[in-house]
Amino acid sequence: MDERLAAQLAFALELDKEKSVFRQTHLTGHGRNENDAEHAWHMAIMCYLLREYANEPIDVARAMLMCLIHDVVEIDAGDTYAYDAEGLATQAVREEAAKQRIFGLLPEDQAAELMGLFDEFEAYETPESKFAHVMDNVQPLLLNSANDGGDWRAHGVCAEQVYGRQRKTALGSQVLFDQVVDPVIQKHIELGNIQV
Amino acid sequence: MDERLAAQLAFALELDKEKSVFRQTHLTGHGRNENDAEHAWHMAIMCYLLREYANEPIDVARAMLMCLIHDVVEIDAGDTYAYDAEGLATQAVREEAAKQRIFGLLPEDQAAELMGLFDEFEAYETPESKFAHVMDNVQPLLLNSANDGGDWRAHGVCAEQVYGRQRKTALGSQVLFDQVVDPVIQKHIELGNIQV
Repeated sequence: MDERLAAQLAFALELDKEKSVFRQTHLTGHGRNENDAEHAWHMAIMCYLLREYANEPIDVARAMLMCLIHDVVEIDAGDTYAYDAEGLATQAVREEAAKQRIFGLLPEDQAAELMGLFDEFEAYETPESKFAHVMDNVQPLLLNSANDGGDWRAHGVCAEQVYGRQRKTALGSQVLFDQVVDPVIQKHIELGNIQV
Repeated sequence: MDERLAAQLAFALELDKEKSVFRQTHLTGHGRNENDAEHAWHMAIMCYLLREYANEPIDVARAMLMCLIHDVVEIDAGDTYAYDAEGLATQAVREEAAKQRIFGLLPEDQAAELMGLFDEFEAYETPESKFAHVMDNVQPLLLNSANDGGDWRAHGVCAEQVYGRQRKTALGSQVLFDQVVDPVIQKHIELGNIQV
């Protein structure tokens, strides 16, 4: 087999491990924990369907690909919960090493491209990155809200923490912040699922 | 909330159920059964990375979206194993009803668009459909091969059945058929994992 194709398939096979990285979010119907691959798939479809709400015009294919690959590094680095201060402090270093190893399995041009896309997502600067982050924030919010805020209750999360993360949602989509995120947070504060 | 956005979110929430539709394929490392959402995610990334091997030029964003949504109907219709003759006989009817109900949750324009994309995938005619099918065939082949052909052995699958399905892979990518599919099948025939 061609060397280039062999490298691409080695990466494809490595990707399989992302299905075994579990998040704090639970599937609807008070189901099991969600894994990174499912989360990324869900985000990518939502990204396509909700693109009309992006603050700025986006290249939707690029934003979808960003959604699909943004958690690949967690194969090595593990999932860091959005409200885990200790884990967040070391996240960047762990993920940088993972990025080099995992995307490094690909042929050089594709490794550089996907590392660049991952960096772009992390940098939170381009319209595509900001909108992909909207999906990264809104997708678990929807699941958690459908599960009566169980994930917030389990971790004793307070309003300041949720707003701290979700205010950045407005950078990518003011509409989704105003019409989805803010009302959902307010509802779960009222219900006592998010602490004041 | 805006009626259009509410419909889009209802569909997004419905998608969550695809994570509970399990396939016959197992994760690498002799893991658990794979679910449809993970499978679709895996296919979409592979579609992007392997697009250079498509027989004809493809709109890769369209092919990726096809990969992402091609199994949504299985939320209602369930997974039909590639070598289950009885299930295959009723698959089209079950999936048509599912298509109407599930994509019908979306606003009319997006429902029509995704139903069209699903139909295009099923029709196996456009370059994008043919290449998305390559991913649908190659992705489980890779996992199954990495698991010593366990899924073929468990179902007593024979070479004629595997070739019957995989010969269509050549319609979308002669390179991937010649360099991946055919050698993998031959190897597992030799090992006795695929019956002659």
